[in-house]
Amino acid sequence: MVNRPPSIVHSMKKHNIILQPSGSRGQVDEGISIRSAARELGVEIESICAENATCGKCMVLIEEGRFEKYNIDSKRENVSPVSPEESAYFARRPKLLKDKGWEVGHVRLSCQCKIQGDVLINVPEESRGNKQIVRKSASNRAIEVKPSVRKYLVTMAPPNLERPIADWERLAKGLETSMQLVRGVDAKVPRWYDLDIDYQCLRGLSKTLRDSKWNVTVSVWQDKEVIEVQAGYVEDSYGAAVDIGSTTVALYLCNLRTGEVLASESEMNPQIVYGEDVMSRIQYTIEHPDGLEKLHKAIISTLNKLLKQAVKSANEKLDETSGLDTSEKNTRSTRPAGIKLSEILEMVLVGNSTMHHVLLNLHPKDLGLAPFVPTIHKSVDVKARELGLHINSSGNIHILPTIASFVGADTSAMILAEEPHKQDENWLLIDVGTNAELILGNRKRLVCTSTPTGPALEGAHVEYGMRAAPGAIERVHIDEKTLEPRYKIVGEDDWNQGKAKGICGSAIIDAVAELFRAGIVDSRGKFKKDLSTKRVRQGENGWEYVIAWAEETSIGRDIPMTQQDVRQIQLAKAALFTASRTLLKRFGLQDPDKVILAGGFGSYIDKEKAMLIGLIPDCDLNNVYAVGNAAGDGARIALLNIEKRNEIDAVTRSVERFELPTDPEFQNQFMLATSFPHMSEPFPHIAHLIPNRVADPMAKNFMK
Amino acid sequence: MVNRPPSIVHSMKKHNIILQPSGSRGQVDEGISIRSAARELGVEIESICAENATCGKCMVLIEEGRFEKYNIDSKRENVSPVSPEESAYFARRPKLLKDKGWEVGHVRLSCQCKIQGDVLINVPEESRGNKQIVRKSASNRAIEVKPSVRKYLVTMAPPNLERPIADWERLAKGLETSMQLVRGVDAKVPRWYDLDIDYQCLRGLSKTLRDSKWNVTVSVWQDKEVIEVQAGYVEDSYGAAVDIGSTTVALYLCNLRTGEVLASESEMNPQIVYGEDVMSRIQYTIEHPDGLEKLHKAIISTLNKLLKQAVKSANEKLDETSGLDTSEKNTRSTRPAGIKLSEILEMVLVGNSTMHHVLLNLHPKDLGLAPFVPTIHKSVDVKARELGLHINSSGNIHILPTIASFVGADTSAMILAEEPHKQDENWLLIDVGTNAELILGNRKRLVCTSTPTGPALEGAHVEYGMRAAPGAIERVHIDEKTLEPRYKIVGEDDWNQGKAKGICGSAIIDAVAELFRAGIVDSRGKFKKDLSTKRVRQGENGWEYVIAWAEETSIGRDIPMTQQDVRQIQLAKAALFTASRTLLKRFGLQDPDKVILAGGFGSYIDKEKAMLIGLIPDCDLNNVYAVGNAAGDGARIALLNIEKRNEIDAVTRSVERFELPTDPEFQNQFMLATSFPHMSEPFPHIAHLIPNRVADPMAKNFMK
Repeated sequence: MVNRPPSIVHSMKKHNIILQPSGSRGQVDEGISIRSAARELGVEIESICAENATCGKCMVLIEEGRFEKYNIDSKRENVSPVSPEESAYFARRPKLLKDKGWEVGHVRLSCQCKIQGDVLINVPEESRGNKQIVRKSASNRAIEVKPSVRKYLVTMAPPNLERPIADWERLAKGLETSMQLVRGVDAKVPRWYDLDIDYQCLRGLSKTLRDSKWNVTVSVWQDKEVIEVQAGYVEDSYGAAVDIGSTTVALYLCNLRTGEVLASESEMNPQIVYGEDVMSRIQYTIEHPDGLEKLHKAIISTLNKLLKQAVKSANEKLDETSGLDTSEKNTRSTRPAGIKLSEILEMVLVGNSTMHHVLLNLHPKDLGLAPFVPTIHKSVDVKARELGLHINSSGNIHILPTIASFVGADTSAMILAEEPHKQDENWLLIDVGTNAELILGNRKRLVCTSTPTGPALEGAHVEYGMRAAPGAIERVHIDEKTLEPRYKIVGEDDWNQGKAKGICGSAIIDAVAELFRAGIVDSRGKFKKDLSTKRVRQGENGWEYVIAWAEETSIGRDIPMTQQDVRQIQLAKAALFTASRTLLKRFGLQDPDKVILAGGFGSYIDKEKAMLIGLIPDCDLNNVYAVGNAAGDGARIALLNIEKRNEIDAVTRSVERFELPTDPEFQNQFMLATSFPHMSEPFPHIAHLIPNRVADPMAKNFMK
Repeated sequence: MVNRPPSIVHSMKKHNIILQPSGSRGQVDEGISIRSAARELGVEIESICAENATCGKCMVLIEEGRFEKYNIDSKRENVSPVSPEESAYFARRPKLLKDKGWEVGHVRLSCQCKIQGDVLINVPEESRGNKQIVRKSASNRAIEVKPSVRKYLVTMAPPNLERPIADWERLAKGLETSMQLVRGVDAKVPRWYDLDIDYQCLRGLSKTLRDSKWNVTVSVWQDKEVIEVQAGYVEDSYGAAVDIGSTTVALYLCNLRTGEVLASESEMNPQIVYGEDVMSRIQYTIEHPDGLEKLHKAIISTLNKLLKQAVKSANEKLDETSGLDTSEKNTRSTRPAGIKLSEILEMVLVGNSTMHHVLLNLHPKDLGLAPFVPTIHKSVDVKARELGLHINSSGNIHILPTIASFVGADTSAMILAEEPHKQDENWLLIDVGTNAELILGNRKRLVCTSTPTGPALEGAHVEYGMRAAPGAIERVHIDEKTLEPRYKIVGEDDWNQGKAKGICGSAIIDAVAELFRAGIVDSRGKFKKDLSTKRVRQGENGWEYVIAWAEETSIGRDIPMTQQDVRQIQLAKAALFTASRTLLKRFGLQDPDKVILAGGFGSYIDKEKAMLIGLIPDCDLNNVYAVGNAAGDGARIALLNIEKRNEIDAVTRSVERFELPTDPEFQNQFMLATSFPHMSEPFPHIAHLIPNRVADPMAKNFMK
């Protein structure tokens, strides 16, 4: 027998597992969790609590090898015994177990339950980690490509005893000539002795020059610093634009020469396990000495993962393209073997102020405590190696400026994408998320504010709210006569098709607007109790309207909109509306000329319905625009056009900041704004949709 | 009273002021501070507290027109009354006033004291700006202290909800104001939004601002980048200048404000274990894949050790000094607890090209292989953290430019120290070591070359050669009648005292010159065999002359100079002389106006004897200067004066390089130069010392 070295000691026992309904199967190590085992076999199981046995998103059914009884002291079985944490989780949910007919031991939290033998596992519908449909996708905005990094071919005479000038000076002199040739004799090209070379790049210079026989392609950053020297002629270099959302991180890999997007990748923001929203993450960093370090490392590692994925995707696309024409492929001997991470020479990142701080490893504490002050507004340039980002180590990382504690670099990017600072008209830009940021103004003046809107508009904290993934209801219509709904599910082509799993953000707006329009809830948001439909009923938590009956769903339960859900939306829209109104008032305007909704949210909501519930100020619906991921677009613009970076730095320096809590009228305005569409504002553009409007002076008390 | 519009306020009265000891005088506006008035008249008065009456650097004596008594309510006088801030400042320093014999009112803070009439002002030494350091050099030039790092006190209003501007922008705005105040309104100070902050420094910013209650001292590098923010008022920062020799590494810890050297430390270069000279170290890096890494780590770790030692020495000195005056120590509550490594904000390093490359972790391979090309000539700036040097991690490491493969940053430093590029005369600078570097020229043109001289001139490869340590013979004289020697030993006050252990470099030159002068060796370097002295004898390795008998030594053996030793010196001096002569010829000169010998070697040799053996070209001995460690001085100059860095970069770009091996006459010249003092050159200035000179046509064959 072969004598195996001790490093293979961890060749512990393997067990067979099968996952249903996918049928995935394979051998996994003893002792790992079912969730880890499933991932190894390519089956994603949901989780948002960082495997803390608190979210319950990862429930699975142990079909073979389970413990007959919930008994910690039971004899050794094929899975580990139910842990105290698991039993505590299930103890808090007797109804769920009863409804499903599950018992503890059969149902397990896959993050807690460890493999100890062969086992057959059933992953129920709601636990499956469906790969998200990425709605943040690059738009087709025309951007002038003027990247910060330009490439120049430099061919030098080799050194000899008569002219033993140093490698860098030899290159710099050749580079000055090349720059002049490429840019034209009139261009302002730096003199060779004013050029610099990044220290890490310098370290590889001598070898590359000799290996290449003094014929290299030089990448110059901002016309002043050499950051890469490659042997021979190399045409392209690459850059990555990233929008770090609190929930989703989206990365666009771009060709810096053509501006083309080669790959778009997104991932959940891994920080979500430390808190769903920015406030809870800030809290986490305050309460845990290593909190910031954990959050920072989590995002850096996700960014590195996304970079790797993007390079892989782009190379696969490249292979497919070249696969169409094998003769072409074979004849182009100079064709690169594929994009390498080291060929990514710059990265531009945006995100809200908390994401910005955590990315830079700056403590976000003061963002969350009055008077809410960021560490820095201006854009930051830092070498990739300083942040541990795995692009070229001499590459630059550019982070767009922040405007205020709750108006971050993502808003700067939105401004860059939409350019309100170049308009004669007055534009109102709204980026809606858990927090909404608003920018109002024109070429002469811009003002901004922000307001927390809660997660309701994005489908969270709504009983059956979910992300816009397959199975999510995305559109709702209610017949005002029959009070019967129709709905459309993500991934289905037609209405009323497929099995519903929950409701996503756009359908929640739809549903509330339709409930109001059909007269099921009144302008104060209250359910009417005398309607002749079974769909309006008193549920466990008060009145509700059933959108989908249990048999129409994949989860075997009715999917309703509840009174609580409606109130969540009322609070969110009131906050948003009051912020808009306050900004307009401070600006001395009645209405904006255009309303621009940014973010995935804006792209999928029905503008008319949003106005009907009073989410946005009244105006001609033709002047309401949804622009998608403007933050991502702005990041891409800043990546591809160096001039835009100075522009946005200057613009953000002049933006005026208003803090809503300092406005004395804010609370009053907020109360009036909770009504549909508003207690005291006319909404002429959607007046025809408003049912018998009643001015109810008591409405402001509805929350009590 | 007339209500004057604000724009006319400055059309005020003028007063005459005279500043002593400079004697500068002129008219200035009423109401401006004495410090501003002095600046207008070209006299800089120190200040780092942004005119906040806290640093006390700007004290002046009011010789005429002062208040007789310190009394705020006194009648109007020629200067404004002592302000409460001033009186508070002086109240904290009773001992200072007592020691100096000053009283408040006579002594004033010039930033607070306003001109109200004609006044005579005395600026004491310690308040004068633009401090100078004086060093020993051929030019006796004083160095103006203009460090790259300057400190400014910045006091900010804390943020509030109305003005929640970010920490960095708050600091940058305050800094702009402080810089303006300290530097004067006409100074070209960057706008706040053009200032930058080092990323690692930014990370600690928010905490420091809050801990310090928004009162900090900011260190700005090159007027553009903040590299350190310290709580409260901090007066000094520090820098280190380093000369990395192949054998010895010398570090000078300096106060960047005063230019004072606080500690000088030296260590053996640890790379010596990988090879004694640069060629063998280059060889080591070629033969060992991890060779460069080893050499690089060795020098970095020695530099860190030296930094630590220097800080310790400086702090010990500080303790001693303050120990002399405990009352002063106790009253100075703001006195720092001691210098910390993190307060060292810049480091300037020089060394030959191989030391330069290894320090920067650049492969030195091509320095040792034809055509002998360095990786880079121009000076390098790199963050301390990139090299792992343990000064402030945001601090800059500046490495002076190299000129050629064998003319390194140490030679650049020598040029900076001696300034041949500012002379009308033609100066020949020679730095002698295992390798000799030579610079010749004037303000219009400089040429350089280098030549290996071997280690003989430094006492190595000479049979009883040793370093200039106790026990080393350092001087030798031989009586031309008796042929008996006298010698002086390092550490002994008188000649012929003590026990000899070996011969150091200066005595080797002496001995060879004396052997020649006394007629013991002929002009070809050969021992005469017919002399009536026991000291000349045939030893184990040929003929030799015994300088010390065994009983006069501590090693119990005779210490001779051998034929082989003499030949080593002949080879070394021939190489050096030929290099000088070639350079002179290329320059079109017969003789230099001055010869400047740099390095420890030059400081200890007898100039006359060096000329007698033909080590240096003939010239008036009064024009031969030994300037000591010019490379170390140059490093210190570049550390203390930022303008000198651009100067030396520009000078080195224009230096012409000659490679001796490419000179067809080199070999012939070399052979002629092996004779004492030279086969074919007259040496009129030392002709009286030369014994019966014989032109020996066979001399060139003596080596055979």
